[in-house]
Amino acid sequence: MNRKNDPSLRSWVEVPKGSDFPIQNLPFGVFKTPGLTPRLCTAIGDFVADLQVLSEHGFFDDLDIPTLVFAQPYLNDFIALGKAKTSAVRNRLSEILDDDLEDWDASELADYFLHKQSNVQMLLPVKVGDYTDFYSSREHATNVGSMFRSKENALMPNWLHLPVGYHGRASSIVVSGTPVYRPKGQQMPDGAEKPVFGPSRLLDFELEMAFVIGKGTTLGESVSAEEAEDYIFGLALFNDWSARDIQKWEYVPLGPFLGKSFASTISPWVVTMDALEPFRTEGPRQDPAPLPYLQAKGPKSFDIQLQVEILPEQGQGKAVCHSNFKYLYWSMAQQLAHHTVNGCNIRVGDLMASGTISGPTPDSYGSMLELSWRGTKPISMPDGSSRKFLLDGDTVILRGWCEKNGLRIGFGEASGKVLPAKG
Amino acid sequence: MNRKNDPSLRSWVEVPKGSDFPIQNLPFGVFKTPGLTPRLCTAIGDFVADLQVLSEHGFFDDLDIPTLVFAQPYLNDFIALGKAKTSAVRNRLSEILDDDLEDWDASELADYFLHKQSNVQMLLPVKVGDYTDFYSSREHATNVGSMFRSKENALMPNWLHLPVGYHGRASSIVVSGTPVYRPKGQQMPDGAEKPVFGPSRLLDFELEMAFVIGKGTTLGESVSAEEAEDYIFGLALFNDWSARDIQKWEYVPLGPFLGKSFASTISPWVVTMDALEPFRTEGPRQDPAPLPYLQAKGPKSFDIQLQVEILPEQGQGKAVCHSNFKYLYWSMAQQLAHHTVNGCNIRVGDLMASGTISGPTPDSYGSMLELSWRGTKPISMPDGSSRKFLLDGDTVILRGWCEKNGLRIGFGEASGKVLPAKG
Repeated sequence: MNRKNDPSLRSWVEVPKGSDFPIQNLPFGVFKTPGLTPRLCTAIGDFVADLQVLSEHGFFDDLDIPTLVFAQPYLNDFIALGKAKTSAVRNRLSEILDDDLEDWDASELADYFLHKQSNVQMLLPVKVGDYTDFYSSREHATNVGSMFRSKENALMPNWLHLPVGYHGRASSIVVSGTPVYRPKGQQMPDGAEKPVFGPSRLLDFELEMAFVIGKGTTLGESVSAEEAEDYIFGLALFNDWSARDIQKWEYVPLGPFLGKSFASTISPWVVTMDALEPFRTEGPRQDPAPLPYLQAKGPKSFDIQLQVEILPEQGQGKAVCHSNFKYLYWSMAQQLAHHTVNGCNIRVGDLMASGTISGPTPDSYGSMLELSWRGTKPISMPDGSSRKFLLDGDTVILRGWCEKNGLRIGFGEASGKVLPAKG
Repeated sequence: MNRKNDPSLRSWVEVPKGSDFPIQNLPFGVFKTPGLTPRLCTAIGDFVADLQVLSEHGFFDDLDIPTLVFAQPYLNDFIALGKAKTSAVRNRLSEILDDDLEDWDASELADYFLHKQSNVQMLLPVKVGDYTDFYSSREHATNVGSMFRSKENALMPNWLHLPVGYHGRASSIVVSGTPVYRPKGQQMPDGAEKPVFGPSRLLDFELEMAFVIGKGTTLGESVSAEEAEDYIFGLALFNDWSARDIQKWEYVPLGPFLGKSFASTISPWVVTMDALEPFRTEGPRQDPAPLPYLQAKGPKSFDIQLQVEILPEQGQGKAVCHSNFKYLYWSMAQQLAHHTVNGCNIRVGDLMASGTISGPTPDSYGSMLELSWRGTKPISMPDGSSRKFLLDGDTVILRGWCEKNGLRIGFGEASGKVLPAKG
């Protein structure tokens, strides 16, 4: 085991029990304060650690890191240094924050580089070049297919042979905490003869995770499934908000467009592949066996517990979904191998999302569409109200964490409040 | 008429008869030479004019343009100045290049700021944030629908109500002249039981035009069809290369993905809306009438003649398609109004392509899929060979121009050579 993942490590910074951010996590993000320009940081307990200040004090001097790579509004330039460098920085942070203060004691500088997370504004972590959304949960694809076609024809013929995906809108990806306007658009109500226009009435969330590309390729080049993880920097939570009525009317034959492009919410922390290593696990058995370019040896999934809470404007929230990343049929390695097999180039900061992560049981379905089964099974809320889809004022909060042998590595939150349609 | 569009204007720079680039055009692009870093330019006859050098010599001093906006590898920062500024620069260029040398005589500096186009390398004109591809030719949608479904059900129910579109891949947009590797991928041959893997055998071009977003919006905001053209900087030629076999197997239910994402070719020159003004024309009559948010008064299309040539590695080329931008059913104004009606934000440099521009006659079809009617009507080439789809070594050249009252405004070329699949 990588020493940095050792559950017995402790930080001199207080880490509350159950925190997402022990010293074994050390994810990367970007923050600003009213007094500070945007800069890179890591999380430790309830604090963010300012990497620019640590850099100015020489803590990374021997790592040959370009000046100012931490004084950026996005992680991209840092990620582009490559895993040898970014892992070295994360290892150094582990040493700096370790309660064994022998080598790199930064505790005297705590006031300069640590800020309470509640006092800073977390920013969109990466400048996303291209955003791709996959559709890799067999349960989700089967649920949706059953609703819109039939149980027998739920999965399209291609689904078990390739990780189906499509291009999404990068401009409307926002960081957790950004409110989301209910989208307007064309809808064709059941039985109507002409489409109508108005705010979506079937607004939904999609519980997803997204991975950040850490290494680019050139046109014509392909990344094998075997080497794909070398190209993945880390993961974040991702809510791919969806307007089901707009989507249903528009999506033939070229796929979802305005039903999705109004907003997607990402968590501010990118958790590295290094930190997730202890939670590696097998994904579902794949039958039929995928074509050779989609094959890779060893476990390629991760045991990440996922939860979705709906918090009404007034009153108490409810966790409406409990799922797990490991339910995904297609692995990230397979998604990336497929994405590049045609020679499509990838760039540092590109985002690839999993698609809705539904599990086998009804409480693990990752969207209101499935949880309320197209509105036929409303979800009761603690305040006595019910939900078929989302209401204005609802805040949707995605959470994710890994837990094993007393070690918990969390992703924080991807949260967004629904505002009424604008104008 | 805008004086700059007056057909009687002449430049002191020689403009060969039939040139795409008379003084009435003055498109924008980006070039470099072995001795010069990338910088913005315009085209005049067979020359490019270096805007950075003109700026250094004070020709734009009174226009309040930020220093170095012309010394950039992309047009984005320049475009972001807004149409008042960019039109003022274009008007000044018209004065500088006008053979009436009264006001702004740059002819003595010709050696410093003019370069033969054949001596410079033209670069990708914009850094594309998001690329959207529409599907706005009724003839194309009908042809494809007839082939894959039936003549009666050719158009999907939504097609006449909204400009169908989908997100495309921005990373693989390349400038004219960049070779294109034949993509590899999964295909399901007719009658096969399992998918096979290999180089695409049905490689195609798509004759499209793309417009460049000139002004951004914020999330939740919509652009009306009436004001949409204020948000469009200009147009370019666009070849949305397609692998029909990969596309056919992958595209249900989420739309085209790897069948398109391996490459799209754009021409290096962005022709401004100002230059196109004299060629404004009505598009097709729309029945049923679109919803109010898609309505705008006055002619919103442009009479742009389009041509596709296939040039085999050996031997003579053949113009296989003659089409026109005005055939498009949905206007750019409608596309943009639709794209933003859900509150999706747009950014300067975003690219929105038309979809394949097919006309009413078989020689105006904008793809090999339609020209060879799915391979059933091969096209004969001058060297005696025939084409159902593209062969390795073929160069596909898109051309476009407007012509009226002795005035010709051209787009140059979007050209790309097909190379064998890599690896």
